[in-house]
Amino acid sequence: MSDTLFSKIIRREIPADIVYEDEDVLAFRDINPQAPQHVLFIPRKPVATLNDLGEDDALLIGRLVLAATAYAKAQGFAENGYRCVINCNGDGGQSVYHLHLHLLGGRRLAWPPG
Amino acid sequence: MSDTLFSKIIRREIPADIVYEDEDVLAFRDINPQAPQHVLFIPRKPVATLNDLGEDDALLIGRLVLAATAYAKAQGFAENGYRCVINCNGDGGQSVYHLHLHLLGGRRLAWPPG
Repeated sequence: MSDTLFSKIIRREIPADIVYEDEDVLAFRDINPQAPQHVLFIPRKPVATLNDLGEDDALLIGRLVLAATAYAKAQGFAENGYRCVINCNGDGGQSVYHLHLHLLGGRRLAWPPG
Repeated sequence: MSDTLFSKIIRREIPADIVYEDEDVLAFRDINPQAPQHVLFIPRKPVATLNDLGEDDALLIGRLVLAATAYAKAQGFAENGYRCVINCNGDGGQSVYHLHLHLLGGRRLAWPPG
């Protein structure tokens, strides 16, 4: 996997508005927010896309989702609701090839989801 | 958690176009598809929303995501790409209160995701 913008954020080589981190996960605000709350959750482990996850990554991807739900609760918008989105490759609209989960909240999300 | 449409699908009390199942996960086509490929992946375990997951559910939610990626690969649209979406509560647009992951593919998904 080639070096990405997000690897540079993990290494603190470029700035980001980091809102959460633990040993497995880093989270920062999307620079092009699509909702009042729009945070990206990424694994520190460099995985390009959902297609590149192995069976032994189930716990990692689960922790990524749980980190997003915990953030929504801590920020007080979990009860109103939110949407978690992971894009894969071109049809999914993936822009950076380091796996990331979009957490969007603070407004009523429409349907379809893109 | 009250009984839902999806509990009834799990118990085979109402029909659904089931495309995948294992011991933890069931998957069936969305009856109101928003893309050429639109499948819902649900845990057999009754969990209402993302907010109701506990820390010990990380593996379960990870398996849900991996089941979706495996399905996309098996159906041949993983390389073109897809989007995984989980809605929580009203702002997220959650319609059935049994946790479910939407897998959408077969067309270019737009941005923002709703």
